[in-house]
Amino acid sequence: MDSRTGLPVVGMVGGGQLARMTHQAAIALGQSLRVLALDPSDGAALVAADVRYGRHTDLAALRDFAEGCDVVTFDHEHVPNEHARALAEAGVPVYPPADALRYAQDKRAMRERLTELGAPVPRWRPVTGADDLVEFGTELGWPVILKAARGGYDGRGVWVVSGPAEAAELVGRLRAAGTDLIAEERVGLRRELAVQVARSPFGQVAAYPVVETVQRDGICVEVLAPAPRLPEELALRAQQLAIDLATALGVVGLLAVELFEVPGAAGRTDDGSPATGGGEPALVVNELAMRPHNSGHWTIEGARTSQFEQHLRAVLDYPMGDTALTAPVVVMANVLGGPEGGMSTDERLHHLFAEDPGAKVHLYGKQVRPGRKIGHVTVLGDDLEKVRARAARAAWWLRERHE
Amino acid sequence: MDSRTGLPVVGMVGGGQLARMTHQAAIALGQSLRVLALDPSDGAALVAADVRYGRHTDLAALRDFAEGCDVVTFDHEHVPNEHARALAEAGVPVYPPADALRYAQDKRAMRERLTELGAPVPRWRPVTGADDLVEFGTELGWPVILKAARGGYDGRGVWVVSGPAEAAELVGRLRAAGTDLIAEERVGLRRELAVQVARSPFGQVAAYPVVETVQRDGICVEVLAPAPRLPEELALRAQQLAIDLATALGVVGLLAVELFEVPGAAGRTDDGSPATGGGEPALVVNELAMRPHNSGHWTIEGARTSQFEQHLRAVLDYPMGDTALTAPVVVMANVLGGPEGGMSTDERLHHLFAEDPGAKVHLYGKQVRPGRKIGHVTVLGDDLEKVRARAARAAWWLRERHE
Repeated sequence: MDSRTGLPVVGMVGGGQLARMTHQAAIALGQSLRVLALDPSDGAALVAADVRYGRHTDLAALRDFAEGCDVVTFDHEHVPNEHARALAEAGVPVYPPADALRYAQDKRAMRERLTELGAPVPRWRPVTGADDLVEFGTELGWPVILKAARGGYDGRGVWVVSGPAEAAELVGRLRAAGTDLIAEERVGLRRELAVQVARSPFGQVAAYPVVETVQRDGICVEVLAPAPRLPEELALRAQQLAIDLATALGVVGLLAVELFEVPGAAGRTDDGSPATGGGEPALVVNELAMRPHNSGHWTIEGARTSQFEQHLRAVLDYPMGDTALTAPVVVMANVLGGPEGGMSTDERLHHLFAEDPGAKVHLYGKQVRPGRKIGHVTVLGDDLEKVRARAARAAWWLRERHE
Repeated sequence: MDSRTGLPVVGMVGGGQLARMTHQAAIALGQSLRVLALDPSDGAALVAADVRYGRHTDLAALRDFAEGCDVVTFDHEHVPNEHARALAEAGVPVYPPADALRYAQDKRAMRERLTELGAPVPRWRPVTGADDLVEFGTELGWPVILKAARGGYDGRGVWVVSGPAEAAELVGRLRAAGTDLIAEERVGLRRELAVQVARSPFGQVAAYPVVETVQRDGICVEVLAPAPRLPEELALRAQQLAIDLATALGVVGLLAVELFEVPGAAGRTDDGSPATGGGEPALVVNELAMRPHNSGHWTIEGARTSQFEQHLRAVLDYPMGDTALTAPVVVMANVLGGPEGGMSTDERLHHLFAEDPGAKVHLYGKQVRPGRKIGHVTVLGDDLEKVRARAARAAWWLRERHE
């Protein structure tokens, strides 16, 4: 507890935009987020009062950081699992617990566990040598997907492999570098969906509406809430799946379940693979994240409780907040850094605000680099096409070179 | 500009809850509010990254603070007017400008200027000695209101004077202490209203919906947005009045106009006093505040643009944000510190969140003292009576002693 306020101290390892926005939510709850940052220019370090410096891979730094925290949680998945375990063993509640966190850190462990649980997953196989991948591709037909088991995000650590020659070259090179690999079928998806739930140590789970995530070059560029034209039955199934996974994996805090919506009968074929024929659409789990997630940024203005407040409530074992939408349609667009030169971000803000007084802007305090996520915008309204166009224009004003 | 982000640095003098909540809004705009606090336990000092310490009455401290700020603004009205002027003369934009700020600092100057402008005000008179007040009370009939021209808020600096004997005693004592005074008629009000506008240096003004403010013992306990059953014509008149005042006084930033709704013909009687007979209700200006204001806390969740973001946009000469309501009914209830002992604030939060997952809480990081404003809650919905009851219950959970 913070002796000045009588309210808890939550420590977040990692000083990026997720910690930055969690600090905003912490302020409303009477708290001040403690942040473990790498550098004073980290997004959260620029705005938080209680910033410590140290590497998330350094157990001694983590122990120092945890001292006096009521709970330790994470802005990213890169804390070594054994360090999360060591902190918890030293008596600091660490959420998500190491036993859950590993499924967000290791795609092979995740695929194994989800397969055991009977959750819908793409066909997949561990890859220890080129032969595994060649056999998998021959069996399923090329191309197939190769993934690094650990460390990839935003399209990094994912390769589309077109045939045996590429498979041999790629696996040889990656295995030589010590990269653990899995292969997955290339799912013929209609679109990507995501559903977020928050779970408390008590076991209460609250689910947000299912959203559609729109990717470009492996990076999420747009989130539509709620997912347009999603049958109610499928939306409920997605929420139930996320609740079941959060519970089965023992997640505490937020869990984002990234899903593929695939054509085909609602269910699985005999061999456990997703049906890809006609009929009702089905769901397949793509990835898991156990923290506030880009697919939930829309909740800041678009849901009664933002994902950042919800994460704090969950890790503190407070009852969960209302997840209802605040408007019929909410669209979040990521702002990626544009080419260098041209207008300053400050000038761009003027033009954006002049054009759309209702667009809500979130800038992360980052130096602009081409392709880097430097912020996001959220627009609310009644008409999907109009709201989507406004969000895209707002992101464009902040992104592109204007001269 | 902050060289790390290319975005402006706004300095706010005063480290209370208004600066605390302005910092939350600054984070979204890519900024980090610079705060001049008195003490590390100040609400904003607990959560902001860029905190300087010094007294707001110390010109040297103010000059140091302003160094490197793109704009200096205020969390309260207690900066000496000549200091605000001196900073501006040294080349730092100070908003609201000293020439406007004086009307929020000195009730006599405000009453004189509003009278000149033809704005509806209660009958009033400067009081330099007991005779002035006795004459005023005899003329209008007792009781009358006596106010300190400077420094009062939340019911402090306001006295209801019942007759000549009390007038003589009170004025004698207050004048001996050097207090400048004015007398005002005791307006037979139906209720209190407030309207907020934000004005930029360019001159753009954006008005928020008119709200009803409910007072107890001179302290605002509840704000209802929009003001229930307010005729559209009167609402527009209130917004126009606030826009006209902001423009005429040269306000930059937020202006809160506190109003009395009085029975009587819509207009003024021949002698300039508000009509108090039957007919349409009329408006009378009670007080002005030139900063984010308690009557606007509902805007954090209840309007598309919060008053805190709007204040930043105004002082930075950004175009104003959308002021539309996000729900048909929004109710804000202040949380006052209850008696000492009993449950901790943290325990109270658990119970409140369990009862009402949709109540939004804002705690200011203050030590609880009986009667002290320690936070507020906001509830949104469709039905005024239900929303109001929920807000009252939420505030009760945070305020009262529960054992």
